[in-house]
Amino acid sequence: MTAAPDDVAAYVASRRALVEDALESCLPPSPQCPPVLRQAMHYSLTAGGKRVRPVLCLAGAEAVGAPVDVALPTACALELIHTYSLIHDDLPAMDDDSLRRGRATLHVVAGEGMAILAGDGLLTEAFRVLASQPGADATRVLRTVAVVAEAAGALGMVGGQAVDLATVTPEPSGRLSPALDAAGLATMHAMKTGALIRAAAVSGAIIGGGSEAQIAAIGTAAREFGLAFQIVDDILDIEGDAASIGKTPGKDAAAGKPTYPALYGIAASRRMASECLRHAEAALDEAGLADSWLLGLGRWIVDRTN
Amino acid sequence: MTAAPDDVAAYVASRRALVEDALESCLPPSPQCPPVLRQAMHYSLTAGGKRVRPVLCLAGAEAVGAPVDVALPTACALELIHTYSLIHDDLPAMDDDSLRRGRATLHVVAGEGMAILAGDGLLTEAFRVLASQPGADATRVLRTVAVVAEAAGALGMVGGQAVDLATVTPEPSGRLSPALDAAGLATMHAMKTGALIRAAAVSGAIIGGGSEAQIAAIGTAAREFGLAFQIVDDILDIEGDAASIGKTPGKDAAAGKPTYPALYGIAASRRMASECLRHAEAALDEAGLADSWLLGLGRWIVDRTN
Repeated sequence: MTAAPDDVAAYVASRRALVEDALESCLPPSPQCPPVLRQAMHYSLTAGGKRVRPVLCLAGAEAVGAPVDVALPTACALELIHTYSLIHDDLPAMDDDSLRRGRATLHVVAGEGMAILAGDGLLTEAFRVLASQPGADATRVLRTVAVVAEAAGALGMVGGQAVDLATVTPEPSGRLSPALDAAGLATMHAMKTGALIRAAAVSGAIIGGGSEAQIAAIGTAAREFGLAFQIVDDILDIEGDAASIGKTPGKDAAAGKPTYPALYGIAASRRMASECLRHAEAALDEAGLADSWLLGLGRWIVDRTN
Repeated sequence: MTAAPDDVAAYVASRRALVEDALESCLPPSPQCPPVLRQAMHYSLTAGGKRVRPVLCLAGAEAVGAPVDVALPTACALELIHTYSLIHDDLPAMDDDSLRRGRATLHVVAGEGMAILAGDGLLTEAFRVLASQPGADATRVLRTVAVVAEAAGALGMVGGQAVDLATVTPEPSGRLSPALDAAGLATMHAMKTGALIRAAAVSGAIIGGGSEAQIAAIGTAAREFGLAFQIVDDILDIEGDAASIGKTPGKDAAAGKPTYPALYGIAASRRMASECLRHAEAALDEAGLADSWLLGLGRWIVDRTN
């Protein structure tokens, strides 16, 4: 039994600790899993990070009344997918970043080929973890597989990353896709970041046995959280420093990527993030979920400094 | 109703045609799926190929008495995964190949970043396709997700590719993993190629509602097919020409990769492939599956010239 935490910081700390422990057991053991590959996956998976997606997943399950353990495999699968996406995003052919979470990126320490494979491995293991939950309701589990795959794939995260890449990278023909306008920016971020954040909370609610009304309300709230998350990320890219945000700051702006502060200014961007929380609160309130940890998590996302 | 084919060539042709049609509908539509990404995924998915895995999957389902349509989504998911693996294998950081199935590889025409994303997208869509089978038995579907994920991931295909990469690529430290011996070669191929071929037939048998004895026998036979497939691949790498095998020949040998002909000679390698078929026949026979198309598919794999 996990003790009830006093505030959202304590809640996040306790759920994050559960996730950290469980993540260790998600990677297949050596030597069945080749040590060179396991080491690469492990390096990135244990590099820290806020664990936003798994904590949201656990909170989604707890909001509908399930014990936290019910959602742990789902939560871990989401972090495996998030970690793979960071590894691939950092590759020279993508964002070409050498610093992530305050450490050298995987391709710097393990080589590009092994980094690509470690990402492929983490993505695939995520679905193995989802599908290997003995005793869980197969219909619910299968629905989480569908939700997570749609959010992580061409209609979600991978699609958003492709749009992002196409706006900053000339094609081999030398042709560069036109820069995104405000609507395009919102769509790109909703796919690239928002979809998986939403899927995290929704899959938690599904595996936790939530009603359709609860699942829908949690999906609405988490969509707002995802947007707020991205706005705050853009602000931190301008205001943060490498030590606290754990990656190279000012990089998006320097690359000419469209950002919320660049389009709207910092003050208006902050107001937009607060507005997201109000929308989320309304949705949760209507479904009788205002007493859950979800809204507190939304505030934690907006108030974060890294 | 699909007409009963006369021989294995007709069987393969008719099942392959079903797969080709169904694959088109596996990619999410534009513009929800960004056109630049969809085009890249489509380029590689429609580049032809033998469709060995999906045909084996359909044959696995038919062997246990299911109508072929039951296994079509599973068959397509396997081909999406196989296609992603080819895209990533061909990348400059991996095998660095510019020719595949007689066409320029994806990273040559779309850039490395988009090729990485197209691979990520195909892998993820495979699990979306598996999880989106309305009316299918959730327990069976979930078991295919587990089987496919395990075969495609760190314990299977990705793991085998990591071992392969580590034997030909110096680490950033300059250290090169030792060359594989015969046992290491067999294990590497069993993971890299064999696991997904086996998963294809097994997942077909599972989704087709086969008994545990049938599923096990089909798994044993398909493991033998996978080994035979790799032996024949190594022989074709030496004896084939670019026009018929559709990729750069002699590449594995030139890269110093261990191959069956290099270790055992061509004649002994051919005998090993035939031996695989005899083992497969024994397993299928014992489970009363000798009349299925599976053994014919094994012969088709061994007798192929590309």
